[in-house]
Amino acid sequence: MNRKFIFYTLGQIFTAAAGMLILPVVVAVIYRESSIWAFITVAGASLIFGQLLKLVFKTHNKVIYAKEGFVIVALAWLCMSLIGAVPFVLSGEIPSYFDAFFETVSGFTTTGASILRNVEGLSRSVLFWRSFTHWIGGMGVLVFIMALMSGNADRSIHILRAEMPGPVVGKLVPKARDTAKILYLIYIAMTGAEIIFLLLGGMPVFDSIVHSFATAGTGGFGIKADSIGGYSAYTQWVIAVFMILFGVNFNVYYLMLVRKVNSMLKSTELWCYLSIVVMSIGLVTMNVYSIYGSFSESLRQSTFQVASIISTTGFATADFNAWPGLSKTILLLLMFVGGCAGSTAGGLKVSRVMLLIKTIRREIKKLIHPNIIKTVRLEYKPVEESTLSGVTSYFAIYILCIAIVFLILSLEPFNMETNFSATIACFNNVGPGLAGVGPTSNYADYSNLSKVVLSLAMLLGRLEIFPIVIALNPFIWKKRV
Amino acid sequence: MNRKFIFYTLGQIFTAAAGMLILPVVVAVIYRESSIWAFITVAGASLIFGQLLKLVFKTHNKVIYAKEGFVIVALAWLCMSLIGAVPFVLSGEIPSYFDAFFETVSGFTTTGASILRNVEGLSRSVLFWRSFTHWIGGMGVLVFIMALMSGNADRSIHILRAEMPGPVVGKLVPKARDTAKILYLIYIAMTGAEIIFLLLGGMPVFDSIVHSFATAGTGGFGIKADSIGGYSAYTQWVIAVFMILFGVNFNVYYLMLVRKVNSMLKSTELWCYLSIVVMSIGLVTMNVYSIYGSFSESLRQSTFQVASIISTTGFATADFNAWPGLSKTILLLLMFVGGCAGSTAGGLKVSRVMLLIKTIRREIKKLIHPNIIKTVRLEYKPVEESTLSGVTSYFAIYILCIAIVFLILSLEPFNMETNFSATIACFNNVGPGLAGVGPTSNYADYSNLSKVVLSLAMLLGRLEIFPIVIALNPFIWKKRV
Repeated sequence: MNRKFIFYTLGQIFTAAAGMLILPVVVAVIYRESSIWAFITVAGASLIFGQLLKLVFKTHNKVIYAKEGFVIVALAWLCMSLIGAVPFVLSGEIPSYFDAFFETVSGFTTTGASILRNVEGLSRSVLFWRSFTHWIGGMGVLVFIMALMSGNADRSIHILRAEMPGPVVGKLVPKARDTAKILYLIYIAMTGAEIIFLLLGGMPVFDSIVHSFATAGTGGFGIKADSIGGYSAYTQWVIAVFMILFGVNFNVYYLMLVRKVNSMLKSTELWCYLSIVVMSIGLVTMNVYSIYGSFSESLRQSTFQVASIISTTGFATADFNAWPGLSKTILLLLMFVGGCAGSTAGGLKVSRVMLLIKTIRREIKKLIHPNIIKTVRLEYKPVEESTLSGVTSYFAIYILCIAIVFLILSLEPFNMETNFSATIACFNNVGPGLAGVGPTSNYADYSNLSKVVLSLAMLLGRLEIFPIVIALNPFIWKKRV
Repeated sequence: MNRKFIFYTLGQIFTAAAGMLILPVVVAVIYRESSIWAFITVAGASLIFGQLLKLVFKTHNKVIYAKEGFVIVALAWLCMSLIGAVPFVLSGEIPSYFDAFFETVSGFTTTGASILRNVEGLSRSVLFWRSFTHWIGGMGVLVFIMALMSGNADRSIHILRAEMPGPVVGKLVPKARDTAKILYLIYIAMTGAEIIFLLLGGMPVFDSIVHSFATAGTGGFGIKADSIGGYSAYTQWVIAVFMILFGVNFNVYYLMLVRKVNSMLKSTELWCYLSIVVMSIGLVTMNVYSIYGSFSESLRQSTFQVASIISTTGFATADFNAWPGLSKTILLLLMFVGGCAGSTAGGLKVSRVMLLIKTIRREIKKLIHPNIIKTVRLEYKPVEESTLSGVTSYFAIYILCIAIVFLILSLEPFNMETNFSATIACFNNVGPGLAGVGPTSNYADYSNLSKVVLSLAMLLGRLEIFPIVIALNPFIWKKRV
């Protein structure tokens, strides 16, 4: 274990965090808010601490393996959350550090679960920082690390693999750094496009920016008590469409960019994702028609909520907790599915669900014809057996982790629907759940223990479990492993 | 597909069903009940229909493969349930055939979920038949089929594999029929022992017999409104111990029988099962102490409920639905675990859970040391990769089936806890769930659609999914497959 290099990299992380904290300072200047001092203090402290770490752990041994990659990813997210939570406390707007940590983890993991009882009471700069964490988290702190690190392609790919959501990330271009750059440009361009569309609908500049940040990261922090419910129908449609778009594999946009439209249209994951979206919207629209009375209203409400949940964003325009059981169950199941691999969405990812179902079908075929040899294919390419067994064991550990988090949450005096949906919503980085943690409620009533456990759940879900489990393993920290 | 042989075998099933229906006739004679005519009529009809099938589908081609085995198993359970439900309707004691079918499937699958609002209003012979279905189901209708079939070891093993619960059934003796005979003798002896222990505690003969039947099959149909709650503490302890015993792999008893105590004590699955039982009892005892006030009372209540749930029996001495959240969640998670492989219990089975966790651990080790080659071992023997991938894909299809059943149940106007726990309790053959289907309630309020879906869930869970899925596949029924 190359511990020196890990701590050196963390030094770079803290330095980067200082840089990010300059943006809310600018916002505080514009709106003349006193919270400016909180951000300046933390930015300064983070810069000094980062430089200190880099100085102390300066090393010539830059050889790292997969395990160091996993540990760096896990610690990067943890440290970003630990330092990113401080301005909330210093500004006095979220007095408890436990609450602030929960909120920041929720931001960086693009979950969007909140402990705030009155979000409208926050200052602009704090609201901006809160949404900005979504945007940073969305594409992954790791893109930063890659940009910071001197380019060793192999090493970067190890980290990229741990970082990239989903089982199948097509390598766009040979070098990992170039891949990162392209994904990053697409991300910025799409965020920009959403801001423009929202401005065109008459949304104020500040609102447009923070909501676009939250959509791009598939996070879901809003700035109003009723999330997106108070905005115009046009705005709701724009956000719904962009939520669906940010749930798509970024490969698809890259193919569009290089005009390989044919390969793009052949993406089975894309079609599967869109089919799930359309089917869910259809079922929910029929199911909630009796509540809204009009077809257009039912369609908009169901489209928005389905888009919000499957992309694991978590914005809301309606209290879907008051919807009939079928709609609630569909939304709960969509939380498990999540968006496409290679998107900013959480959840299991569509391609992983496809592989699970294909593996099951093969298993049944094998039972009928014991001597058959069958390869599972995805996107017209055969999938290696090790990938398949990786997907099925990932599913097993995923369900196991959810069971453990749910068990610990059961110490709370809330009902099972609250605790179960809180577990699912945090683990899949959705944000709002049902009942006590539904879209009109929040996570404020949970104990500090539960808040820490749920924060861990968000990190586990966002980093696809393994980096966190490996980093928490004391054995890995021994020098000679 | 050897369809002729399948229907011929079904003829034997109906003939066997006629034989089984003679026992409740005897009970009706003893208690001079008018329901005797219902049983005589159905026994007669079943005998005639069975002989007709055997006559029409008489075939010399007795060659069958795995797929025929699966189909026979699935149809055997379905036909037994279809014919077994008729006496309930004819006697007028369960007027709706949907209800009667649900109750009978629940019996033969050893689930114990009931639609009866007033179980104490039933006649003795009907109560006996209801509990007797547990006993038949417990060891498997397939033991009957095997006994009926002229011995082709290979063929029998195919069917046995589909029938036997759990992933790893050690072949006790070379011939499948002899294995069946030994398991059957152990089963009868243990049932007899329980009857004697219950009689010693002053329980009436009839009650002792039906409760022992329900314990042996890990079913859980009782004859009182409060299940076992009204019986003495001694009786509750006896039943609790026997529930735990019937959740143990029958291999263990065989080893005890042939005095291989050392190999018996080395069974890791046994120790894992007992550890889960003890830990769960410990946690629940602490958690419910404030309700009962006394340690001995808390211990008995928690032991009984933990034993009842992990063995997937479903008897109750307390309304655990009123217990604190932690206890409820522990019981809910135990429903997933179930008993040992090779027992009469349902659920995932302890050895399968062990294999899942071992696979996960290996996957993590592989990520840390990518070049490591590691074999998973169970009971000190290396487990084949195909078994491991079978277990992980079984887990995936298991969760998928649960999700689908839960989705359909969400059409009901009940809360999520009711629908979710109903799904879990039926799929894992437990019986009572939580909230609206808790131990003091029943499944009577569900619609006929839901009752059919839940019946299917019980069959899927009992037969470990694949036989039912294969039998429902229209493609398999083509002649040239």
